[in-house]
Amino acid sequence: MAGNESGKAQVILDLDTGIDDAMAIAYVLGSPDAELVGITCTYGNVEVGRSVRNSLALTELLGHPEVPVYRGLGHALASDGFEVLPSTLRIHGVNGMGEVEVPEPMREADPTPAADLIVRAAHELGPRLVYVPTGPLTNLAAALRRDPEVARLIGRVALMGGALTQPGNVSACAEANVSQDPEAADEVFRSGMRVTMVGLDVTHQTLLTREETARWRALGTAAGRAYADMIDYYIGAYAESAPQLGGCALHDPLAAAVALDPSLVRTLPVNLKVDLAGPTRGRTIGDETRLNDPEKTCAVALGVDSERFLGHFMERMGRALGAGE
Amino acid sequence: MAGNESGKAQVILDLDTGIDDAMAIAYVLGSPDAELVGITCTYGNVEVGRSVRNSLALTELLGHPEVPVYRGLGHALASDGFEVLPSTLRIHGVNGMGEVEVPEPMREADPTPAADLIVRAAHELGPRLVYVPTGPLTNLAAALRRDPEVARLIGRVALMGGALTQPGNVSACAEANVSQDPEAADEVFRSGMRVTMVGLDVTHQTLLTREETARWRALGTAAGRAYADMIDYYIGAYAESAPQLGGCALHDPLAAAVALDPSLVRTLPVNLKVDLAGPTRGRTIGDETRLNDPEKTCAVALGVDSERFLGHFMERMGRALGAGE
Repeated sequence: MAGNESGKAQVILDLDTGIDDAMAIAYVLGSPDAELVGITCTYGNVEVGRSVRNSLALTELLGHPEVPVYRGLGHALASDGFEVLPSTLRIHGVNGMGEVEVPEPMREADPTPAADLIVRAAHELGPRLVYVPTGPLTNLAAALRRDPEVARLIGRVALMGGALTQPGNVSACAEANVSQDPEAADEVFRSGMRVTMVGLDVTHQTLLTREETARWRALGTAAGRAYADMIDYYIGAYAESAPQLGGCALHDPLAAAVALDPSLVRTLPVNLKVDLAGPTRGRTIGDETRLNDPEKTCAVALGVDSERFLGHFMERMGRALGAGE
Repeated sequence: MAGNESGKAQVILDLDTGIDDAMAIAYVLGSPDAELVGITCTYGNVEVGRSVRNSLALTELLGHPEVPVYRGLGHALASDGFEVLPSTLRIHGVNGMGEVEVPEPMREADPTPAADLIVRAAHELGPRLVYVPTGPLTNLAAALRRDPEVARLIGRVALMGGALTQPGNVSACAEANVSQDPEAADEVFRSGMRVTMVGLDVTHQTLLTREETARWRALGTAAGRAYADMIDYYIGAYAESAPQLGGCALHDPLAAAVALDPSLVRTLPVNLKVDLAGPTRGRTIGDETRLNDPEKTCAVALGVDSERFLGHFMERMGRALGAGE
């Protein structure tokens, strides 16, 4: 783990490194107000080993081999294995990067397990730590089980996952990340940790098109070309599943952006839970037993200034993708 | 139908007259800024015939025999019958008024069917018409099928029903009123009509206790005694199902209050739908196909100033209940 005294947000991304996770990496690396102090890896869009490999390769492609990458748990807390869903393979490709070839990484993952790193970072960085999970919440829940103090110590958490006022994307009720490990998400929501949930309520209000990816390709860098190709693949998958959109949603980058600039979204304070049993398993919903608690630990993003976000996002992506060779 | 040129809100209550519906009647009759121009009757807490009888009896008890009462449809659009649920009988009593004896009404229902009355009122009163459904939306949907112009003509609709950010009360997903006739609610939400949904998100944030009902009993009127007895019965049912509350929720009166004073709640603009199939049947949720429409036809109440509402409610109830003999 890196980390300095610059006053910049000290960001840890927790990624199942598929295509929108790749955008989140570039976004943070292109943010002058943030330092990417580490990437913890999880499963979801890809298996955890592939997430590690992709995270190492992409940080090197973007000219940042100093960013440490940590391997996390490979499956849900209440499960003993994980397989990538066929629908996910269609969206992110078998290699998680839309079958785009990115050079093999020169380095390996840091030997520290992701959950241990999260506990250490919470103690060392405290309120300056900004933690952004964009996959299942398994690593964060494992860290909380190891040291419940993490809930109080960690500075800010903005997670991509869940859906409160919109239907899910893997069932009528459940969003993909939360449905991968409902127990982990429920433990996080009940831990007392201050969390901003950036779910389908807002990420489906953001849109990237081939017009934007063409600008990255025109940068003339290897990173610009690779990212343009990856996101075009992703937009192609969206064109089959949601042709009315005319582009792709910016799930993970929006969570990272909200972590750095909470003013991009309008939020509802609410104490959340996750349904763990029955046909609604994996649904994120208000906890009726804590409805009237004056203290709310979660803020759910329900509105987003899409235009301002897209400008902010493109500026930072341009900085990251233009810096490479 | 009455209706004048006083500048007061011209209110139609659409009631399945159980105990909290009874409070909504008294609340509107005690509101100096509203005129109760009619009550249309539906099924839910009781059968529609019992709703008619209770509405006639209660308006007479409150000294307002001039309020016309209209019989509505007796069951859901997609169903051919209706029976009161056993759990509802426990909450509202077999007579819908907590087994409290209220004198038999002297008059009968107006012969106009409720749906016809709604169409007529929308044309005659237009923007001054405030329509407050507190049961299934069957009558309103029937009026819309008869004349889709009603969606555009009617002034304001505040309905008690649904749950967006909280679990349901008849299943994990579904609230009782919407679950009685999901098709009707879905037709209303998709009609283009401007609707404020006052659901469990906010009604479970309101609370009435035996301290308040004791004040009504102390008024020394027949209406004050009857209402205190009814609501004590209702509070007793809550004590069994939700002992942590220490009172009862004010479902229907809150919808009526929001109809008269929208500033009592904070709302989220959203285009709603109702799930009609599968295990989530009866759930109110954002319509993902209309997420990015700039125009939102529904405002969902998510926050309520409970203290201000209770003061406002008690003042008006005191006026209505103190006026009787």
